[in-house]
Amino acid sequence: MEARSGCPINLATEALGDGWSMVLLRDVMFGNHRTFRSILHNSMEGIATNILAARLKSLLAEGFLTAAPDPTHKQRTIYSLTEKSIALVPALIALGAWARRFLPTSPELSAPNRVLAEGGPQLQEAFMDELREIHLGQPYPHQRTRPSALIREAYEVALAEAEEADIRGNAEIR
Amino acid sequence: MEARSGCPINLATEALGDGWSMVLLRDVMFGNHRTFRSILHNSMEGIATNILAARLKSLLAEGFLTAAPDPTHKQRTIYSLTEKSIALVPALIALGAWARRFLPTSPELSAPNRVLAEGGPQLQEAFMDELREIHLGQPYPHQRTRPSALIREAYEVALAEAEEADIRGNAEIR
Repeated sequence: MEARSGCPINLATEALGDGWSMVLLRDVMFGNHRTFRSILHNSMEGIATNILAARLKSLLAEGFLTAAPDPTHKQRTIYSLTEKSIALVPALIALGAWARRFLPTSPELSAPNRVLAEGGPQLQEAFMDELREIHLGQPYPHQRTRPSALIREAYEVALAEAEEADIRGNAEIR
Repeated sequence: MEARSGCPINLATEALGDGWSMVLLRDVMFGNHRTFRSILHNSMEGIATNILAARLKSLLAEGFLTAAPDPTHKQRTIYSLTEKSIALVPALIALGAWARRFLPTSPELSAPNRVLAEGGPQLQEAFMDELREIHLGQPYPHQRTRPSALIREAYEVALAEAEEADIRGNAEIR
């Protein structure tokens, strides 16, 4: 299919602006969901089976994902990120930071973005290196604490706070 | 309409992932096209009249644009960016920088992105301040050269290079 124009913003929109691609890459990237079932059953947005199948197919065709049989269950396919999708991290972080400012985001679902946005380019690079280790088999080159550990911790703190607020809210109702 | 989830990436996708919003904001932002006709006639992607009308309506409804009558032609509407759309600049730059690396972008249409990506956060902030001056009437607070002047220069250099390459190409064919 011919591109509408060679403008970077337009080409990025054509590659990712279908309403699901970025969300699915997020699930592989941040949720480490790497099989059809894992993505389907953990989808926060409730993606439909047929849409997931179609979107995975096009993400493979466009080089955002690769597929390989699971060594332990040959019928099962494991999806991996590519350098092309890992390199989207800074753009996803910038977009998420904008969304936190202007859209009604949830505090616990925003925790990964908050950690990576506040950590700046260095932490984002280290997170990309973690993804390169998991998905491309490249050894993690840093000594520092892994960004994924910081993200998990921030998520758990935000979740505990949200639950506490719920309990307080319910106590007030009673 | 209820959001599919409160995740920042999802909400950003829902707000901008329709295939046109980012491209139209780009036209207002970088092309300074601020009327229906100016956007329509300068659209590099050849947007259709009815789609443009529908998209502008939803960009207004979602607070990405405001509309006001043109003081010189009362029937004509002038569109302005808002703080919400101006704040998208870093995300658009990051997305464009990714696109330049992985998608078949045109050198001259990539010039603005190249200038702003290489200039880093400081130049991007100054560019946002220029947009705040044009669209929100806030005085430009810097002494430095305006980013728009650097962008225009880079675009003209890239365009001249592209034209020279075309002439060379044609000479070789002859």
